[in-house]
Amino acid sequence: MNAIHTLLHPRSIAVIGASADASKTAGRPVAYLQKHGYGGAIYPVNPRADQVAGLTCYPDIDSLPGVPDVGLVLVAPDRAIEAVGALSRRGTPAAIVLASGFGETGESGARRQQALKEAAGGMRLLGPNTIGLVNLTDRIMLCASGALEMESLQGGGIAVVSQSGGILGSLLSRAAAAGLGFSKLVSTGNEVDLEAADFIDHLADDPATQVIALYMEGLRNPEKFRQAALKAARAGKPVVVYKVGRSESGARSAASHTGALAGEDRVYDALFSQVGAVRAQTFADLLDIPAALATRRPLRGKRIAILTSTGGAGTLVADSLGVAGFETPPPGPETAARLRDLQKNDQIVLDRNPIDVTLAGLQPELLRSTIATLLDSADYDAVITIVGSSALAQPTLAAGAIAASLDQSDKPVLAYVSPHAPAVLSNVNRAGAPAFTAPESFAAVLSAMLARTARENAGSVAGDAGGAKAAGAGAAGAAGAHAGASGSSAGTSAVDAADLPSGSLNEAQARALFARYGIPSVGERAVADAAQGQREARAFDRPVVLKVLSSRITHKTEAGGVAVGVAPEAVGEAIQAMAARVRERTGIEPEGYLLQEMASGVEMIVGVHRDPQLGPTLLVGLGGVTAELFQDTALRLLPVDRATVGEMLRSLKSWPLLDGYRGRPKADVKALEDAVLNFAAMAGQLGDRLVEAEINPLFVQEEGRGVRAADGVAILK
Amino acid sequence: MNAIHTLLHPRSIAVIGASADASKTAGRPVAYLQKHGYGGAIYPVNPRADQVAGLTCYPDIDSLPGVPDVGLVLVAPDRAIEAVGALSRRGTPAAIVLASGFGETGESGARRQQALKEAAGGMRLLGPNTIGLVNLTDRIMLCASGALEMESLQGGGIAVVSQSGGILGSLLSRAAAAGLGFSKLVSTGNEVDLEAADFIDHLADDPATQVIALYMEGLRNPEKFRQAALKAARAGKPVVVYKVGRSESGARSAASHTGALAGEDRVYDALFSQVGAVRAQTFADLLDIPAALATRRPLRGKRIAILTSTGGAGTLVADSLGVAGFETPPPGPETAARLRDLQKNDQIVLDRNPIDVTLAGLQPELLRSTIATLLDSADYDAVITIVGSSALAQPTLAAGAIAASLDQSDKPVLAYVSPHAPAVLSNVNRAGAPAFTAPESFAAVLSAMLARTARENAGSVAGDAGGAKAAGAGAAGAAGAHAGASGSSAGTSAVDAADLPSGSLNEAQARALFARYGIPSVGERAVADAAQGQREARAFDRPVVLKVLSSRITHKTEAGGVAVGVAPEAVGEAIQAMAARVRERTGIEPEGYLLQEMASGVEMIVGVHRDPQLGPTLLVGLGGVTAELFQDTALRLLPVDRATVGEMLRSLKSWPLLDGYRGRPKADVKALEDAVLNFAAMAGQLGDRLVEAEINPLFVQEEGRGVRAADGVAILK
Repeated sequence: MNAIHTLLHPRSIAVIGASADASKTAGRPVAYLQKHGYGGAIYPVNPRADQVAGLTCYPDIDSLPGVPDVGLVLVAPDRAIEAVGALSRRGTPAAIVLASGFGETGESGARRQQALKEAAGGMRLLGPNTIGLVNLTDRIMLCASGALEMESLQGGGIAVVSQSGGILGSLLSRAAAAGLGFSKLVSTGNEVDLEAADFIDHLADDPATQVIALYMEGLRNPEKFRQAALKAARAGKPVVVYKVGRSESGARSAASHTGALAGEDRVYDALFSQVGAVRAQTFADLLDIPAALATRRPLRGKRIAILTSTGGAGTLVADSLGVAGFETPPPGPETAARLRDLQKNDQIVLDRNPIDVTLAGLQPELLRSTIATLLDSADYDAVITIVGSSALAQPTLAAGAIAASLDQSDKPVLAYVSPHAPAVLSNVNRAGAPAFTAPESFAAVLSAMLARTARENAGSVAGDAGGAKAAGAGAAGAAGAHAGASGSSAGTSAVDAADLPSGSLNEAQARALFARYGIPSVGERAVADAAQGQREARAFDRPVVLKVLSSRITHKTEAGGVAVGVAPEAVGEAIQAMAARVRERTGIEPEGYLLQEMASGVEMIVGVHRDPQLGPTLLVGLGGVTAELFQDTALRLLPVDRATVGEMLRSLKSWPLLDGYRGRPKADVKALEDAVLNFAAMAGQLGDRLVEAEINPLFVQEEGRGVRAADGVAILK
Repeated sequence: MNAIHTLLHPRSIAVIGASADASKTAGRPVAYLQKHGYGGAIYPVNPRADQVAGLTCYPDIDSLPGVPDVGLVLVAPDRAIEAVGALSRRGTPAAIVLASGFGETGESGARRQQALKEAAGGMRLLGPNTIGLVNLTDRIMLCASGALEMESLQGGGIAVVSQSGGILGSLLSRAAAAGLGFSKLVSTGNEVDLEAADFIDHLADDPATQVIALYMEGLRNPEKFRQAALKAARAGKPVVVYKVGRSESGARSAASHTGALAGEDRVYDALFSQVGAVRAQTFADLLDIPAALATRRPLRGKRIAILTSTGGAGTLVADSLGVAGFETPPPGPETAARLRDLQKNDQIVLDRNPIDVTLAGLQPELLRSTIATLLDSADYDAVITIVGSSALAQPTLAAGAIAASLDQSDKPVLAYVSPHAPAVLSNVNRAGAPAFTAPESFAAVLSAMLARTARENAGSVAGDAGGAKAAGAGAAGAAGAHAGASGSSAGTSAVDAADLPSGSLNEAQARALFARYGIPSVGERAVADAAQGQREARAFDRPVVLKVLSSRITHKTEAGGVAVGVAPEAVGEAIQAMAARVRERTGIEPEGYLLQEMASGVEMIVGVHRDPQLGPTLLVGLGGVTAELFQDTALRLLPVDRATVGEMLRSLKSWPLLDGYRGRPKADVKALEDAVLNFAAMAGQLGDRLVEAEINPLFVQEEGRGVRAADGVAILK
């Protein structure tokens, strides 16, 4: 995108509302541009000043000596609209509006935001309500964040895209103190025009960027994000995202802050996993994981060597890694022998990991050769060096030794800094080994590194199921590209659904719909009343399930509308009792009753609903009446392919029940996958017409015997 | 304990092996004592020096001019044993041995450790393999940690007891940088004599200590810890514990470090909750939670006001609080009106929380009065102030305003520091408001504060079930005080179990044992073979459950030894098939067969096992064949009382199943509690004889209809 390139590399910048007082917010941008060595032309615009920071100041935009590449607009909302109009008229390609008081403040603000958009015309806009952007690769600061007061801002491979300016400042100052470097940082603010996805798309092509850290409050355009994140993943530049809105408080707070709509948080998890993005679980992860991924050192396995000169700290890290499924095996005989040769100390104990190197902690060359030995060992996939309190007296020792060992291997080398020792932390990070002060960081970071290796080995982005085989392509939203009756891998061809009524279908209608898409139901008969029920019951030779039939009752169990194990001869009586019970509990007159054969097998739930923000979503999990209690479910955005459905099933706690648990026969997983794919294909074909659909329970019978839907809900538009 | 008082307040200290070179580890302790202003007598002992740091140096312990209160032994292991012997002979009350190379290094080290213990005789010992202790209340440093190089060590209300010296150094330096103060810090090392529990016991009486932070790798004496932690809780001084060994890697690593045995991690969770200790989930929590509890400001509810001048950071905190169940409601009309009066700004939006106070962020008096207004508001239980990047230019503003508002209320006041701003962090902490740099800290800290309020309101320590009503008092371990047939609240009187065989009981024997303790079983008949089975089956008028009977088969389902829903007339045939199946799968000849009535109700599991470290443990959870899959269980150390059992049941995900889930009848919870208490009483009465016992499933029938054990395991010694 050309406008973004121009925003990041302007040859000339007009600063509208620049103040001659550098201590004021409006004085900062010119000061920061100069302080950090911007080489292009700066045009301060301010009718009340002749000069700003030694530069000629212009009274208005029309007086500028040339058309600036970028207009940085610092004035208050109403004047910002005028300035944006003037910049656009002069042909400025892009502008940044810092003022708040637009869409984030309610109705009048939303009107101002609309006026701003109109004033911009063809000119691209970043903001409003942004702190600006920073290009650290080329040291161009179009930004008012106080974090730019810091002296030690370093270039590096991490890009930041943030929907909050305060978070940009927080990340910038924290990284600077830790010795981490950035390529570009952008605060996208209210996203009246350019949005986070535009920058991700651009940064995927930026040679200086290795990884993209994203602070997200909500998505305006999920499909654009999806495409940009997939592009970044294909370029080997993972997106690491910290998203708020996990709780109602957070969602409300995020919504009030940027005006972005929040989707259901779990659906974002599905989205991130499907586009190969890593979700940061803590705010610290949003720097830690990118710092590790930016090294591009591949983690090929789970065996981690921990090198320590202080027992407790090594234990903290080992324990935390163990909880996350990593291994810290003791050195094998060959490695132990090599370590012993290095240490020349008979007392050293080498049958354990953390590997204690009290001596090496004080001797740079010994520390270097110990790290190199561990990196060279076939026993380990990565090395973590623990820096203890003795480093307070020798702040460069560990960094020097670590730096000197990096070229020996491409395995990850990381460090834990146990005492408060900011200089050590910074030195080690600058040396190229990610260093952390929280023992928990390593599990998060190594898991992300391992996932990246797995994705790259698979040769594709996990969940990039955009091909012809994917089922559940909808007519709208994220699945737009795959709409229509393209067929699913389970072999469902186009089904005509034009005859279906709108609204909530009753159970029998819903299962009839699912049957059109190849999902079989249990054997059953629908009857109108007790008398007919008594007659039809003769067709069953075993106890049946009796259910009330009503499109108005969603929760039949609570309504007293389900009876299990009714003997065929007692069906008439049971219907009479049920009718009375349902009327009493709900006031609803039953439409009829179903007699169903009692199915057996594993009870699953399969559902599709439409997330208001992110589009059609597939849920698969353990079903039955306790489904809501245990919430053992997997979620993905549609479309999905067979591999994804298989992955969803295997991610369930209850997967063993399908896979021959404790000597039982295996369940018909192939038929279950077919049914799920058919259900997804149905959602794709019905598109916007389908509001919601669910089968619960879907009985998965023994291998080779298929599945049977025993209940169903469908709501059509 | 007098020796601990002497260790913390010595009037004279002999430093054995003191080096004249302060840059060496052996030179540090005297230097640190002097640097931090120790006023008592210091006697360096070193045959190779005349003076150390300006003090007369003595060639050996026998030459000392008087008996020192404490001997600080810095020499290598073998000489340390000699020195300890000499100190003991002179009548020194207590010594500290820093050297490593004892119990933590294997067999020869263990022998050295035994020799050290013998050399000490009646003298009390701290260590070996300790970094020493620090009394910051009185500024007495008996410690070699490099962290004492720091200048800004503050006194305060947090005590630290650590089984690792490195962790002590880490906490000390991190707290010093953050502006947090300590009372006492102790590293207990290999605990050859004095152990962590001794110090907790002592610190519970220390007026300068408000809260005790404990780094734990394992417990040598669980009962001593239990008593000490309960004493601290009664004194209003919560113990906050970070325990490693959550994973096998960590347990192995911890075991190799201190030689302490690790119990199963979940049992420690139970122990901590039963003694009112808070478990720190991250290492950062080990400082954060004590910092908050040390203020002694009570949190009375979940409604938190967040005051911010930077949108994103407030959102981070609100989101994280929401996930943990806290509320961030917008200000009510009265509070909003008062805020509006303060701000004198029509544009300010007050219908939300985080409450945005852009102006107040820059004006101390306005910030102070805004905080005071929120503290005064009936809408909130605590206030969090967010400090943004603008604080980088005004590092004392927030601290000053927060400090000035503290006296207005006893509600908690906390702060989040968003940019890297160590001076601000330290200033706010010193002002008395705990300040954190991770948004996740607030959820951990406020949860701990709320739990403390709940405990104090309850007037007792949760789980302090040591009274006559507690069931499951064993003859050994933690429950030793409650041994014998003291009876349970479920009314079980003493049962004679002398006739019981040793070893693994078969199912029928196990349930017969449980029946003696008042736990009823399903109706059943034991039969020897197919012919007898066929005859006895006539007693049943419905399908039965058929099970193999064998004391050698624990997992009957996997062995093909369970058949459900067998028609009475088909029992003979089913027994023949089962016999063949079981022989084929296991090679074991069945002892017989059980015909059981098919029970209905909620299937629960109740079990007792003996943790090798912590003693007898009670497990209650959702039962059935899927029990291991869903692991929906609660665990407590015995003894327990009825309230604890009720709490265990209500903590289960599956609790709604017992409580009338989705229109079903309620289950007989009273009978379930009785059965669990009876089971616990059985464990108490059988004491060491009971290795393990379990009922799964225990059918909990409808209210008033009791419970039925449908399977059982018991192993006796």
